[in-house]
Amino acid sequence: MAAPSDGDERSDAEQAIMQATYRALCEHGYANLTIHSIAEEYGKSTAAIHYHYDTKDDLLAAFLSYLLDKFIDRVHEVETTAPRERLDSLLDRLLTDREGYPEFLTAMLEMRAQAPYNDAVREQFQRNDEYTRYLLKTVIADGTDAGVFAAEDPAHAAEALMLIVDGARNRYVSLDEKNALEEARETAKEYVEHVLMDE
Amino acid sequence: MAAPSDGDERSDAEQAIMQATYRALCEHGYANLTIHSIAEEYGKSTAAIHYHYDTKDDLLAAFLSYLLDKFIDRVHEVETTAPRERLDSLLDRLLTDREGYPEFLTAMLEMRAQAPYNDAVREQFQRNDEYTRYLLKTVIADGTDAGVFAAEDPAHAAEALMLIVDGARNRYVSLDEKNALEEARETAKEYVEHVLMDE
Repeated sequence: MAAPSDGDERSDAEQAIMQATYRALCEHGYANLTIHSIAEEYGKSTAAIHYHYDTKDDLLAAFLSYLLDKFIDRVHEVETTAPRERLDSLLDRLLTDREGYPEFLTAMLEMRAQAPYNDAVREQFQRNDEYTRYLLKTVIADGTDAGVFAAEDPAHAAEALMLIVDGARNRYVSLDEKNALEEARETAKEYVEHVLMDE
Repeated sequence: MAAPSDGDERSDAEQAIMQATYRALCEHGYANLTIHSIAEEYGKSTAAIHYHYDTKDDLLAAFLSYLLDKFIDRVHEVETTAPRERLDSLLDRLLTDREGYPEFLTAMLEMRAQAPYNDAVREQFQRNDEYTRYLLKTVIADGTDAGVFAAEDPAHAAEALMLIVDGARNRYVSLDEKNALEEARETAKEYVEHVLMDE
């Protein structure tokens, strides 16, 4: 799998449309997201959006790719190479609440629930997920080589952590469980310390 | 929290409507679920359904309550009182694939994604979740009293296992990850053996 490029190759217009999509999703939710509502946030016509993205599905797949690039940018800001610290930093990034996050996660859960019916969106969700698991697996494998972790199967360990992350996001939104992200961060810590460091 | 009654107090008609709702959800998904589609599965008129349930939301909340009762019935079939075996049996029940399960989970994820917009449905999801966590917490606390487990906080341990369960169900549906339930069963086993039995 090729890693997304470091520099953002999107044009200024495309970046502005991606930011408008983020705001429109947070404001209207996924079910009520229209090209019209994105155009309103963008401050231009729907034609100006369709110039860059033929269909709403194209735009949504591009938006998920944009989110992945933003995530990778932040991961690259982590300067330490120590495996435990790098893993902690990834888990912090995946499980920290922030302003506007409830609205964003609510829209994401709606989009994910529709993924079985939308090939382009599901495939981009899968690519994003694959890359995140790849980052987790790599740091766990590196840490095992370095004797910090003792993972028998780094790919399974990465999947285990993603189960905890996705469970937290689902519960935070669908059950309105305000402490789901903190509970998940604690659970991930227990998994790291007892399963990855203790066998 | 009062436990749901052991015997099913629903009338024969209500039970038949709940079974018809299950089939309609699996066939049409949540987004396309209508009283009409349930009536077709039920083999009677929509009026026959509205006689028992005023609104679709009432029916959906009743359906979630019905699912909880079915879950509890199966839990009661487990005859062992040994904590580890009881916990394993609960986790097996929460994480075992079965015929028709992909369609059912797909509809459930859609319904959960709409829960932020629907108080009656969200509250029933919360009650179902609360009861499942209560079952997990109780067996973990009993096991800790018996010296089988060493859980510092049984409520958190129950929440940790539910994060893994909900993460698996989400990933199974939204990422089409066929082995998500097995990965989650393995992760739950690791959590039980390394976190609950190892500290």
